[in-house]
Amino acid sequence: MAGGIGSRFWPHSRKKKPKQVLKIFGDKTLLQETVTRIEPLIAPSEILIVTTEELIGHIQKQLPDFGEDNFLVEPIGRNTAPCIGLAAQKLIKSDPDGIMVVLPADHLISDAGRFITCLEQAIETAKMDDSLVTIGITPTQPETGYGYIQYDPEDKKPTGAYAVKTFAEKPTLDTAQRFLASGDFLWNSGIFIWSIRRILSEIERSLPELYAGLMQIEALEGEGAETQFQHIYSGLRSISIDYGVMERAENVAVVKGDFNWSDIGNWAEVYRLSSKDADGNVNLDGHILIDTSNCLVDSQDRLIATVGVKDLIIINTKDAILICHRDSAQDVKRVVEHMERNQMDKYL
Amino acid sequence: MAGGIGSRFWPHSRKKKPKQVLKIFGDKTLLQETVTRIEPLIAPSEILIVTTEELIGHIQKQLPDFGEDNFLVEPIGRNTAPCIGLAAQKLIKSDPDGIMVVLPADHLISDAGRFITCLEQAIETAKMDDSLVTIGITPTQPETGYGYIQYDPEDKKPTGAYAVKTFAEKPTLDTAQRFLASGDFLWNSGIFIWSIRRILSEIERSLPELYAGLMQIEALEGEGAETQFQHIYSGLRSISIDYGVMERAENVAVVKGDFNWSDIGNWAEVYRLSSKDADGNVNLDGHILIDTSNCLVDSQDRLIATVGVKDLIIINTKDAILICHRDSAQDVKRVVEHMERNQMDKYL
Repeated sequence: MAGGIGSRFWPHSRKKKPKQVLKIFGDKTLLQETVTRIEPLIAPSEILIVTTEELIGHIQKQLPDFGEDNFLVEPIGRNTAPCIGLAAQKLIKSDPDGIMVVLPADHLISDAGRFITCLEQAIETAKMDDSLVTIGITPTQPETGYGYIQYDPEDKKPTGAYAVKTFAEKPTLDTAQRFLASGDFLWNSGIFIWSIRRILSEIERSLPELYAGLMQIEALEGEGAETQFQHIYSGLRSISIDYGVMERAENVAVVKGDFNWSDIGNWAEVYRLSSKDADGNVNLDGHILIDTSNCLVDSQDRLIATVGVKDLIIINTKDAILICHRDSAQDVKRVVEHMERNQMDKYL
Repeated sequence: MAGGIGSRFWPHSRKKKPKQVLKIFGDKTLLQETVTRIEPLIAPSEILIVTTEELIGHIQKQLPDFGEDNFLVEPIGRNTAPCIGLAAQKLIKSDPDGIMVVLPADHLISDAGRFITCLEQAIETAKMDDSLVTIGITPTQPETGYGYIQYDPEDKKPTGAYAVKTFAEKPTLDTAQRFLASGDFLWNSGIFIWSIRRILSEIERSLPELYAGLMQIEALEGEGAETQFQHIYSGLRSISIDYGVMERAENVAVVKGDFNWSDIGNWAEVYRLSSKDADGNVNLDGHILIDTSNCLVDSQDRLIATVGVKDLIIINTKDAILICHRDSAQDVKRVVEHMERNQMDKYL
């Protein structure tokens, strides 16, 4: 899934250049890293990248070894349920008994080996009893930016996966602290593993309108099919697979992911995950930081000098500069909202 | 005097583009404003602008109506005493009985009318009893960035000027508070008024080495004179007129300047003197300031967005960006020192 728009990484992220196509860490973009990471398990010919009309050009450029068949284009983003439904519908034709691994293209996972092991365990679980399987990350802090999965420690499957008791939306800090203390709540990674047949049947059961839309799309042919597809898909309700399917489904399992994982929700998280110098600064480009601590400074084409500041995120791009307190990183989306309201399209 | 280098306005100020040639407020540079301000009192033909070899090109461009005779070029800056001595030596030839008004080119004076009245009063004082006259500004806060002048309230001259008791260097905060409370201390504006003959005789008395150097320069002629001039002038001791002459002189007077004045020592002072919006922000270019207060944001070619910050000075230029806490504005010179130590000449 590589269709996200991610306004919280402005000014690096833009409508046509969202988080997944940015090099947030290292030399590869998050999308390229996601593809590289699963190569030991899934052959390139079996990888399907779903993205939007708006992003497809950019995304194909980042994956030059991939051909037409590797891409599936949504006319417009409609959240994860339609995206997954559309992909499943395409995949079932070539592999009706196949297992489908759903991966967001914009997450950070630093230990690819353990990640692959977890995926193998999840695939085995899905094959064993046709579970809807997800990967849950053992929480390290009372994070309020993630959804949670409660598992049943008493109900462990032979593969090592656990039965899921319930899904919980992003909690308040109090609730997140309780979740952390309880020990049986995991972060919802948004990674899913299931048989293609099962997820389509779950969509049919829980999201009949979406299923009907997918059937209409399936039936399209001849002249005007593309326009019809755009029309039908754009009319689908925007809904997440978590809310639309997972929360209402039976026989859901979770594999505990013991790898470092982050959905890198904002610049403060990038700061948290980056290597820092003795003053706690992230300063990859040799900027001049005087009496400065715990800042992230990112600028390629202009020298930055800071004096007497702390806890700032400073991001310079070709046409815009962000200066944000680390505690306000979630509010970067308010900058984008302001620009949308004021028709400042060139910065969007 | 337009030879200053002013590193505290980096990144706007550079070696070849110091404070006096910047448009810090309004449409004119501080130099242009200084010249315009004295026009009602002093004819352009009687204005002499002293600056350095390095800056003369830039400065002539800013004053296109001025001819060769209006400029005097120092090979290198040597503080105010040599600068004033060199200027006096030139001026005395055409006007041996003249009065000389010495003005820094980089100060802000918002009430030109009252300024002219004070200068007239000072000129009258210098004519009356050949005093060395200075302008002292009634302090409004216990400023530690200025030198002070103590005057004698009992010794008022017919012109309204007062006799000076003593000069004081930049004080500590404690001392500055005592100065302010005492009521007889004024800020040293660095503006001087005296007869050309008197200041040269004071230089001869208090700075005999400088005077000897000026005499050598006076005697130069023919081929090689320019090279000799550069050699002699560069060898002069760098010393201020305050320290070298004023602090040791007799018959010194001060006119109380009741106009708004600032030497605009750093970016925090620019913030203090600028118009602010309801959140205390100086935002002339329509930048996006979210949860932001008491900041100065200056960027022409790139949009700035701030989120959750306060008390910052943010200055963007073609090749460098400064983010500085308002309380650390004095330390911007440390950025320049860092760049000098590290041969980062392109930013100097």
